[in-house]
Amino acid sequence: MESNGISESKTVTGDFGYVLQDVPHLTDYIPDLPTYSNPLQDNPAYSVVKQYFVHVDDSVPQKIVVHKDSPRGIHFRRAGPRQKIYFEPDEVRACIVTCGGLCPGLNTVIREIVYSLHHMYGVTRVLGIDGGYRGFYARNTIPLTPKVVNDIHKRGGTILGTSRGGHDTSKIVHSIQDRGINQVYIIGGDGTQKGASVIFEVIDKSFGFDTAVEEAQRAINAAHVEAESVENGIGLVKLMGRYSGFIAMYATLASRDVDCCLIPESPFYLDGKGGLFEYIEKQLKENGHMVIVIAEGAGQELLSESMQSMNHQDASGNKLLQDVGLWISQSIKDHFSKQKKMTINLKYIDPTYMIRAVPSNASDNVYCTLLAQSVVHGAMAGYTGFTSGLVNGRQTYIPFYRITEKQHKVVITDRMWARLLSSTNQPSFMSHKEDVEDSEENDISGEMKNEEPATPCWGDENCADVVTENGDASSM
Amino acid sequence: MESNGISESKTVTGDFGYVLQDVPHLTDYIPDLPTYSNPLQDNPAYSVVKQYFVHVDDSVPQKIVVHKDSPRGIHFRRAGPRQKIYFEPDEVRACIVTCGGLCPGLNTVIREIVYSLHHMYGVTRVLGIDGGYRGFYARNTIPLTPKVVNDIHKRGGTILGTSRGGHDTSKIVHSIQDRGINQVYIIGGDGTQKGASVIFEVIDKSFGFDTAVEEAQRAINAAHVEAESVENGIGLVKLMGRYSGFIAMYATLASRDVDCCLIPESPFYLDGKGGLFEYIEKQLKENGHMVIVIAEGAGQELLSESMQSMNHQDASGNKLLQDVGLWISQSIKDHFSKQKKMTINLKYIDPTYMIRAVPSNASDNVYCTLLAQSVVHGAMAGYTGFTSGLVNGRQTYIPFYRITEKQHKVVITDRMWARLLSSTNQPSFMSHKEDVEDSEENDISGEMKNEEPATPCWGDENCADVVTENGDASSM
Amino acid sequence: MESNGISESKTVTGDFGYVLQDVPHLTDYIPDLPTYSNPLQDNPAYSVVKQYFVHVDDSVPQKIVVHKDSPRGIHFRRAGPRQKIYFEPDEVRACIVTCGGLCPGLNTVIREIVYSLHHMYGVTRVLGIDGGYRGFYARNTIPLTPKVVNDIHKRGGTILGTSRGGHDTSKIVHSIQDRGINQVYIIGGDGTQKGASVIFEVIDKSFGFDTAVEEAQRAINAAHVEAESVENGIGLVKLMGRYSGFIAMYATLASRDVDCCLIPESPFYLDGKGGLFEYIEKQLKENGHMVIVIAEGAGQELLSESMQSMNHQDASGNKLLQDVGLWISQSIKDHFSKQKKMTINLKYIDPTYMIRAVPSNASDNVYCTLLAQSVVHGAMAGYTGFTSGLVNGRQTYIPFYRITEKQHKVVITDRMWARLLSSTNQPSFMSHKEDVEDSEENDISGEMKNEEPATPCWGDENCADVVTENGDASSM
Amino acid sequence: MESNGISESKTVTGDFGYVLQDVPHLTDYIPDLPTYSNPLQDNPAYSVVKQYFVHVDDSVPQKIVVHKDSPRGIHFRRAGPRQKIYFEPDEVRACIVTCGGLCPGLNTVIREIVYSLHHMYGVTRVLGIDGGYRGFYARNTIPLTPKVVNDIHKRGGTILGTSRGGHDTSKIVHSIQDRGINQVYIIGGDGTQKGASVIFEVIDKSFGFDTAVEEAQRAINAAHVEAESVENGIGLVKLMGRYSGFIAMYATLASRDVDCCLIPESPFYLDGKGGLFEYIEKQLKENGHMVIVIAEGAGQELLSESMQSMNHQDASGNKLLQDVGLWISQSIKDHFSKQKKMTINLKYIDPTYMIRAVPSNASDNVYCTLLAQSVVHGAMAGYTGFTSGLVNGRQTYIPFYRITEKQHKVVITDRMWARLLSSTNQPSFMSHKEDVEDSEENDISGEMKNEEPATPCWGDENCADVVTENGDASSM
Repeated sequence: MESNGISESKTVTGDFGYVLQDVPHLTDYIPDLPTYSNPLQDNPAYSVVKQYFVHVDDSVPQKIVVHKDSPRGIHFRRAGPRQKIYFEPDEVRACIVTCGGLCPGLNTVIREIVYSLHHMYGVTRVLGIDGGYRGFYARNTIPLTPKVVNDIHKRGGTILGTSRGGHDTSKIVHSIQDRGINQVYIIGGDGTQKGASVIFEVIDKSFGFDTAVEEAQRAINAAHVEAESVENGIGLVKLMGRYSGFIAMYATLASRDVDCCLIPESPFYLDGKGGLFEYIEKQLKENGHMVIVIAEGAGQELLSESMQSMNHQDASGNKLLQDVGLWISQSIKDHFSKQKKMTINLKYIDPTYMIRAVPSNASDNVYCTLLAQSVVHGAMAGYTGFTSGLVNGRQTYIPFYRITEKQHKVVITDRMWARLLSSTNQPSFMSHKEDVEDSEENDISGEMKNEEPATPCWGDENCADVVTENGDASSM
Repeated sequence: MESNGISESKTVTGDFGYVLQDVPHLTDYIPDLPTYSNPLQDNPAYSVVKQYFVHVDDSVPQKIVVHKDSPRGIHFRRAGPRQKIYFEPDEVRACIVTCGGLCPGLNTVIREIVYSLHHMYGVTRVLGIDGGYRGFYARNTIPLTPKVVNDIHKRGGTILGTSRGGHDTSKIVHSIQDRGINQVYIIGGDGTQKGASVIFEVIDKSFGFDTAVEEAQRAINAAHVEAESVENGIGLVKLMGRYSGFIAMYATLASRDVDCCLIPESPFYLDGKGGLFEYIEKQLKENGHMVIVIAEGAGQELLSESMQSMNHQDASGNKLLQDVGLWISQSIKDHFSKQKKMTINLKYIDPTYMIRAVPSNASDNVYCTLLAQSVVHGAMAGYTGFTSGLVNGRQTYIPFYRITEKQHKVVITDRMWARLLSSTNQPSFMSHKEDVEDSEENDISGEMKNEEPATPCWGDENCADVVTENGDASSM
Repeated sequence: MESNGISESKTVTGDFGYVLQDVPHLTDYIPDLPTYSNPLQDNPAYSVVKQYFVHVDDSVPQKIVVHKDSPRGIHFRRAGPRQKIYFEPDEVRACIVTCGGLCPGLNTVIREIVYSLHHMYGVTRVLGIDGGYRGFYARNTIPLTPKVVNDIHKRGGTILGTSRGGHDTSKIVHSIQDRGINQVYIIGGDGTQKGASVIFEVIDKSFGFDTAVEEAQRAINAAHVEAESVENGIGLVKLMGRYSGFIAMYATLASRDVDCCLIPESPFYLDGKGGLFEYIEKQLKENGHMVIVIAEGAGQELLSESMQSMNHQDASGNKLLQDVGLWISQSIKDHFSKQKKMTINLKYIDPTYMIRAVPSNASDNVYCTLLAQSVVHGAMAGYTGFTSGLVNGRQTYIPFYRITEKQHKVVITDRMWARLLSSTNQPSFMSHKEDVEDSEENDISGEMKNEEPATPCWGDENCADVVTENGDASSM
Repeated sequence: MESNGISESKTVTGDFGYVLQDVPHLTDYIPDLPTYSNPLQDNPAYSVVKQYFVHVDDSVPQKIVVHKDSPRGIHFRRAGPRQKIYFEPDEVRACIVTCGGLCPGLNTVIREIVYSLHHMYGVTRVLGIDGGYRGFYARNTIPLTPKVVNDIHKRGGTILGTSRGGHDTSKIVHSIQDRGINQVYIIGGDGTQKGASVIFEVIDKSFGFDTAVEEAQRAINAAHVEAESVENGIGLVKLMGRYSGFIAMYATLASRDVDCCLIPESPFYLDGKGGLFEYIEKQLKENGHMVIVIAEGAGQELLSESMQSMNHQDASGNKLLQDVGLWISQSIKDHFSKQKKMTINLKYIDPTYMIRAVPSNASDNVYCTLLAQSVVHGAMAGYTGFTSGLVNGRQTYIPFYRITEKQHKVVITDRMWARLLSSTNQPSFMSHKEDVEDSEENDISGEMKNEEPATPCWGDENCADVVTENGDASSM
């Protein structure tokens, strides 16, 4: 998504170890661009606000657990309106595209980008791209006005439609140029795009996250009721999280009814001492029932092994077993019916699509509003190649060049995971494997370890990044 | 469940074709039983009520769509308190058992039986049987007092636990006799028991039904949002109903977002002209997305055929395909991926366990309250071998001897199903099969055909019947 | 609303005391009207339905608790499609108006009338009248198509707007004639209109009722939590019901957390032995907290007395006291602060507008659908001057001439009220007043007394009647 | 609440302007206290966590919007478990008290304090004080075990009961000493207590806040539906916030249906140019309806003036007018009925008690869990006289000596308020008054202005502070 030109780091340093990881700006490419007065100066809503505009030097530190002698470390540029803007509102042609899987809040972000452009900056030409990236060239566009988007935040999903993968980048670029579009707002990520993952190292949480955890609790409650109502009842709930278990972890912590939470970051095994089956048996004998939460991406290596050992002549049924929830349900049933004399009653719930499709709750609505306003302020101020994200509670601009292949994950050597283990009383499932290897942090001196896990995110849907691109569309 | 003695019909006839299908009474077996004054006479709550007690002759007709010259037909005894009771409250030993699958309202019925026995009749010895029928001999019992059950109606499931099948009737009878129990309240049915099905021919609706339909709508809404958000999106929701499609039908009618509703009563086929695949293709081409609701028991014969044609070497994956929702999802995906060039996006939601486990809503709470009071009044008044049920909006006592093997089903030649077809615009899927054969009703003269389908029920969970048994425990 | 011509009773009698209270028909005024084949005959959705059309003689009895020798009594015409219709679909100009206060389900009824006219009968000219009756002449109309109304059932309120009172009937009639409108569908009632009240004697329940009771429970739950959390906590909830207490009664029965339910039909007094204050004091001393539900119209005579004794110089504050909830809250506080040494903590909740504005739940959605279809079938079949309503679970047509001034009320000498008293344990508040006088029913021989209260309705909002008027608009 | 001894500031300074505002520690009073190994070291749940214990020097900055040359400023001690503890678990006698008004999450905090003490530290003697502060001497205590508190997080309110004001501090101290209590956990605040307010200057948000805003939206939605459904409809919602308008502001931002939000921090006036009545009239003329949200404490000076001008002979009605929601409703009605010819339809909703009483949502449940664990870790580690609070997303310990009389308020010269004004388009209501005076911040050099409003809180209920007190009970 980024041009070669802006993929290089752009940093500013200051006193006592201060480093600003800055975002690219249009003037990095075209030095003498004209500027315009920000129209918010004349907006009555802002007339009472002292120092409404963000100071050009405002920044927010990435790490905030510090010692008295800690160097100051990496900072990000604070989001917000600037005194000067680099677009004449009349000349802006903005477009909005949603991509990747659904998550709560997409419509709120769409709505607020449109409202911010219209009401704050007087930008009236905003296009919605229908059906994800491919929509740039394959489908119609939808003119977006405040009236069109007025009530969409009350509905789940995305009014623009979405899609995954399979697009032709050069066709997109041509389409953008042909249409004269000079601001591109991208909401979500398609999962295959490398750009998304890094953000989660930095930002506080994805939008839609609170809503998702709230909704996940409904499934956990039901699983608990089902499990309690029968002898040896097991309620098993699969939750989103292909690469990380944040939703599973937070839903477990919020619910307090879960006895076992399995996530991609924490390997486990089924058979033998210290394994899952043993733990299930113990729980059933002690309490008569149990609730298990499993993230979508947990136990993938076990699943792969199991697949390889299968007879592949009949693909149809086996395809279903690639779903970890169905596979583990079947594995547990098989184990207890074949190998043991214990009759179990397993009820499996997969609420994934019910969670993704709910409208965002109040706190996500506020979050999405601030996110959308931040990204519009940044775009109008001439920044480009950035994602807007909450860092330690403040909206910031995070440059694309921080993008790496590294996934954002639950740090299982961290205290939040310990809290979860303490809440469920589940074993660590590591006893017969090697100990967790020392993390790479060990040799980092002068930096704090043991930070709180700062970014509850979807772990794979990448729905948190609002990306804007200005000026030279060929940079996509 | 019934003794041979009471399985015979007991009818009263009257003017103009009036027939009362009466319920057995303790005095049918032991003629000279003593009676007692109903303690409700002294209850201050009832002191303002004129003619509080139900008249001995009150009855309710089964069919109420009539012509001016229609004979009066079958009636049932109206439920409610009687002037005389046949148990001395001090001598009552009641027990309550829940069996079969969960449904909303079980706890409310338990609560209200306990409250009615205590507060209306002064009966203080009420036992809960833990874990369904087997609990009579295999597990502990729970003393039930108003204090114990005070808040249970706010929770889903059953505090007594439940189980299916596998019990030893003679052990149950011995246990009942050993404990001196003389009133047995059975809530739910275990699905295999023949007793439950007939009731649904008669009564208005199962308890928990409204709550279930309400909750089912959440899944349909989510499926709709998912389907709308992608190109060729299909949202597929499986709902309860092994033998009948009432929940699927009512949820479809209530939601208005469903394009196709598949139920056990209405056969369908997949391939070829007039088949499901053709309809899906047409819908996607016209609207870009669609929502399908399928009842658990729909398409069983197609599923069986499909199973037989499979390679049975790998049982594990195939087991999953016995679930009609997973099977049809896979069939649709396979069809469109292999045979067609159309890329579809199918999202499958199975909310079954989330629906069963919710607490009952307000209208089901009121319904369960009246049901529980009715059954207690009946038991105290000496009736036995009956189920309490709502007939045309009135609580009645329905005798066990009406029990047959016939399942209660959606009548697809009836107007309610036509309403559904009209609402979804789906085809009848019957064009290449023979016409629906004439129903057996055709030769019934003097009876009205074309009644509304009077009994929205679960169709298989049989959760609606509250059964009580008095006196001779060996009749079970 | 009715012309003099059709205000006369139109009855058919039959065997064994059968009486049909028939509805007027266009042919009563213009004998030789042409008829048309019902287009539903060619509708594929109905092709599988045997005997789809309602038999011309189908009727439903008003009273169904009968004895073996009971005469058959009053019946109503069964609703549903007829073989012959009296309008050519092309010539229909229908309009829909909503009036009176909001209730859940108005939008669903609007939607389904439009859908039924369009999809069942091919009627495409349907107008929405904006803003209630006055909208006929004072405001714009809104063309209603299936596309326009597609999603409105998911929103509360009425998309047409509503108003109360103050309209000019002759202007309405002129407007209807000017526009060539020949079918008028009226949803709701304006409270002052005499037409509405009688219906509730007959029908099972108002639409929106279930939703309202459900929502009312949320307020009662909150009141209960508040009351329990403080010493001598009183949670007081006011619910709708100016003339009758059905919502208060059903919400109380559904919730089970209420200690006292006050309704218009059951007079009470505050001071002295057996009065409300005494009961409150007793409850607080015994349990430490209590929950009171009061219907809007309860205690009006006490409130009037209290108003008369007030200094009227300051109208502003006193106006507020005309709200029974505020008045009784203040009265209880004053009593305990001035006369007693007991410190109470009263929390008052008035959820009225939150209840009225919610979208209808699933069971009300189905109910509204059937209601709308019934009324459209009736109008197309040439019936006029009728309301469609559920009688003993069946949709029927009820003639306007049954309209009287009599309000539909909770019968406090009936068993449902006794159930409530038994559930709350509250006193009857009648000890120091005269006994409840014998009801007028006492001399009715041959009719059953002690029927269940058949019509849970709003008691004043009159939201249940869907009224249609055909042909001669001057009959309004 | 604090002893004189610990009311003095205790600060640590470091490089580049670093200041740590430290919390008192038991060793400040008794230097040679013995220490014990933290039992978490042997807890299997924590065995995988590297560096589980918080480093003794970890701190979190108060201000994080910085420039490259900013001095580092004030920091707080990071919360979390310490290697050494100052209590032997066997000797701990802890008690928990809830005080002030209800808010969502009280029960979750109670539950998690009990769980943390039991499961993390092996502390088994935990008492609940019944009925707020007075409960220390006037009522019974409740032994709290994990079993007792297991499900309480699913219920609203507080199982311990609460009360406001009127307690006798010396009696409390005696009671604590008599019972040998050495850890006092205080949840909530009684509103009159000076201790609470300052916290909100510092921490991110109160617990229960997200839940409250979520629930507030339901009322706003209803107000919107009511307003839209009638001509000149005004939906008016009163929300909590006696001294600050955070809930009103966030609910307005989350809902997007509000046209006017009135809060204590932003004065307004009714009559004349630029006043509220003018704005209402304009909105109704333009849109036909409007929604107003008013915080409990808004417009108090207008209300006082209005009260003074009233005839005080009738106190009863006027008392009601002290409720700003009732007062402003009446004022608007009076204005439009008396002075104008415009007929308005105002619907007033006060959801306060429904909001306070709901169970906390998922994100508040997680928040309350971390809060409770932090405060227990702090208490066991020997810290005293502190509140635990989220500062920039990290749990910290905030010393009591920061307590001042200053209220935490919405900063109306801040950007969040500008966002709200921009979202509602309401006027600033300041045109005919003097300009907002320069804030006291103006002379602060070297500190950032224009921070985001960091603390969404209840504004008066003070429900956010969990306070613990160790060792010397006389410090209370």
